[in-house]
Amino acid sequence: CGFEPIFLGYSRCVLKPKTTEEVAKILAFCNNNRIAVCPQGGNTGLVGGSVPVFDEIVLCTSQMNTIYSINDTSGVLVCQAGCILENLDKALEEHGLMMPLDLGAKGSCHIGGNLSTNAGGLRLLRYGNLHGTVLGLEAVKADGEIIDLLSTLKKDNTGFHLKHLFIGSEGALGVVTKVAIQCPAKPKATNLAFLGLESFSHILKVLKKAKGDLGEILASCEMIDQSTLDVCTCNLKLKSPLAEFPFYMLIETHGSSDAHDQEKLNLFLEDVMLSKLILDGIVTNEPSKMKNIWDLRERITEGFVRDGYVFKYDISLPIEHFYSLVPVMRERLAGTEGIVRVSGYGHLGDGNVHFQVSCKQFSNEILHQIEPFVYEYTSKLRGSISAEHGIGFRKPKYIHYSKSPESIVIMKELKKMFDPNGILNPYKVLPM
Amino acid sequence: CGFEPIFLGYSRCVLKPKTTEEVAKILAFCNNNRIAVCPQGGNTGLVGGSVPVFDEIVLCTSQMNTIYSINDTSGVLVCQAGCILENLDKALEEHGLMMPLDLGAKGSCHIGGNLSTNAGGLRLLRYGNLHGTVLGLEAVKADGEIIDLLSTLKKDNTGFHLKHLFIGSEGALGVVTKVAIQCPAKPKATNLAFLGLESFSHILKVLKKAKGDLGEILASCEMIDQSTLDVCTCNLKLKSPLAEFPFYMLIETHGSSDAHDQEKLNLFLEDVMLSKLILDGIVTNEPSKMKNIWDLRERITEGFVRDGYVFKYDISLPIEHFYSLVPVMRERLAGTEGIVRVSGYGHLGDGNVHFQVSCKQFSNEILHQIEPFVYEYTSKLRGSISAEHGIGFRKPKYIHYSKSPESIVIMKELKKMFDPNGILNPYKVLPM
Repeated sequence: CGFEPIFLGYSRCVLKPKTTEEVAKILAFCNNNRIAVCPQGGNTGLVGGSVPVFDEIVLCTSQMNTIYSINDTSGVLVCQAGCILENLDKALEEHGLMMPLDLGAKGSCHIGGNLSTNAGGLRLLRYGNLHGTVLGLEAVKADGEIIDLLSTLKKDNTGFHLKHLFIGSEGALGVVTKVAIQCPAKPKATNLAFLGLESFSHILKVLKKAKGDLGEILASCEMIDQSTLDVCTCNLKLKSPLAEFPFYMLIETHGSSDAHDQEKLNLFLEDVMLSKLILDGIVTNEPSKMKNIWDLRERITEGFVRDGYVFKYDISLPIEHFYSLVPVMRERLAGTEGIVRVSGYGHLGDGNVHFQVSCKQFSNEILHQIEPFVYEYTSKLRGSISAEHGIGFRKPKYIHYSKSPESIVIMKELKKMFDPNGILNPYKVLPM
Repeated sequence: CGFEPIFLGYSRCVLKPKTTEEVAKILAFCNNNRIAVCPQGGNTGLVGGSVPVFDEIVLCTSQMNTIYSINDTSGVLVCQAGCILENLDKALEEHGLMMPLDLGAKGSCHIGGNLSTNAGGLRLLRYGNLHGTVLGLEAVKADGEIIDLLSTLKKDNTGFHLKHLFIGSEGALGVVTKVAIQCPAKPKATNLAFLGLESFSHILKVLKKAKGDLGEILASCEMIDQSTLDVCTCNLKLKSPLAEFPFYMLIETHGSSDAHDQEKLNLFLEDVMLSKLILDGIVTNEPSKMKNIWDLRERITEGFVRDGYVFKYDISLPIEHFYSLVPVMRERLAGTEGIVRVSGYGHLGDGNVHFQVSCKQFSNEILHQIEPFVYEYTSKLRGSISAEHGIGFRKPKYIHYSKSPESIVIMKELKKMFDPNGILNPYKVLPM
């Protein structure tokens, strides 16, 4: 993102409908009267997608929180768009199920917002993305027409697959009102390994081996570099269970037999130790120890704030290049005054690196050394300049770094087709 | 489908381009001259989607069979659309990987056709559908414009997710020319259980238990009723390893440790035996025995042909109703002359039942007793009248049984936007 937060709208009207029909009436009225609407879920987005820019009416889904059904056998959950992710997870627990996605914002984010932003998160490696797990949805178009795509079926090849137009389009094509999602069985066993490594090339080898050896139980595979871990250990005074190493990996397994999973993990660890792919490592299934390790990953954002000002980027790169931006940027910024650290961490298993430059305070000079270079670098490697956070209000002018001109033209045509008056989430997603 | 095959076009021109640029030139020419085009992959579809209806030019992808890259670490395969599925699987094997989908037609079907029809198949339960596993694609629009969506990234939230428009739209919105797909590790261990059961309600209980107990290793969960098995044992003289039971289940596991997987399967079987959920069952990991059991599933279509004429339906239903059509239809057809059998089998884990009525010969009277009743029944339960086979030429007039009028209007608008002259696969997918 790279700018000071400016996520502050001037709306004087927040509407909180309870039903799809109410959403439809609101949108029909706004469309007829050319009133702009900003759909909002839990308002936890990081690119301003759910924040009004000027005086849009805020259409908030917080009252749309009914769970319609949970099917024990098929694992299908059907609910309204305003259900909070964590509440859904809790409701599923009684049925031996869980949500296929998990994010830091789970306590406030709405499932409708998750769909609209194609939220990724920590379990994607194992349970797949929302295009795969969402079975159906209901959405309301800008003109108030209700589009019923609320299938609960895993297979339905009857015509064009329209639901995907509403997944990840950030409320610009319609407002998601109901969701049907495929939920996996809640794992009976969870184990976590925390590893110290010497180099990124070793990380790639360990990733490959983990995919082969742990295959079906591999649930998360994250990496953190030393400089990033420091924001937790130095800034937040968290304790790391390992000594200092250039790189760390967190590998979590989900399975149905603790004994089997531990055996697999231990064999895997013995192998990578013996072949010197890792320098040290621990495995645990104790909840408190697992939490302490996950804190080293999940509290990174909080830790960075203590550095001063942070330029943050959410980038996907082909796996060999996952970490390459960090040394390149370190060299580029060498000698620049005010830099605290240049570092990277993130969802290694998904090729999604969180890259940041922290400095004592915001500086235009540093900004211009980072941007647009960081986007050009990503674009040259055919990476994504927004892996999981979306485009929102922040990034429309950068979208061309990841999307071809022809694609952007199609997106604009789709926008015109679905929302000819442009009332839905204006100034967002697409460049003017 | 319910009609005599009429899959015979009158094309006098088949073009076999080798490159995307050639596809683009062909389409630009045809679009300018209002010449209809029928995109064709391996021509293995079951609803006539790849067969010209009148004198369309056939645009065949068979010469577009280059594999560009296989990435050992990320598991990403990039190739041209005309690669044969089985060839891709073989190429991946050397890298310890496999394709996330597997179909009976794998020896001839093209990956581009798989995408265009959103092919399902036998591994979907475990590895997910193509909307989840396809990372990127390249397609050519009707006017010859090349749309580069060939991302190899698992996460890319930059704008609307356009690639899904080309997955499952049966070549009506564009011709898929290149594919990037996420491939899982090839399992080190495969085990197969074949179970005999008393009732469908027991099947549902065993399915639920299998999902919980076998969770991460569950790869396929199929069911066959006695009447369907008979077409293999009586018509084809195949041997079943079990005595006769009203229902059968095939449960295949894929895992990274044979010992662990066998232990899980054996524990599961002991439990379902003890609790009398199953009447008998065997487990094997011997390739020849597994093949014999899978033959009982995969040769069903061949076996049915010996009955005479077969009315076949590929239907998705909510899991509780998976089998309900069979007894309802048996009652409806009771006493009708010429009926050989009314039976059901299919991808239980995906809620996709293959339902058929076989008779000595085609009869209009029987047809009208089955249709449109079978579609109305499916529609009432919000099922899909084409779970995995698609709409093609055969079913446009039935699409309204599974899709709302509003959805069909949007589909028609999309068709107009992407192919204003209607040159791509005319008379298919959408109703006139």
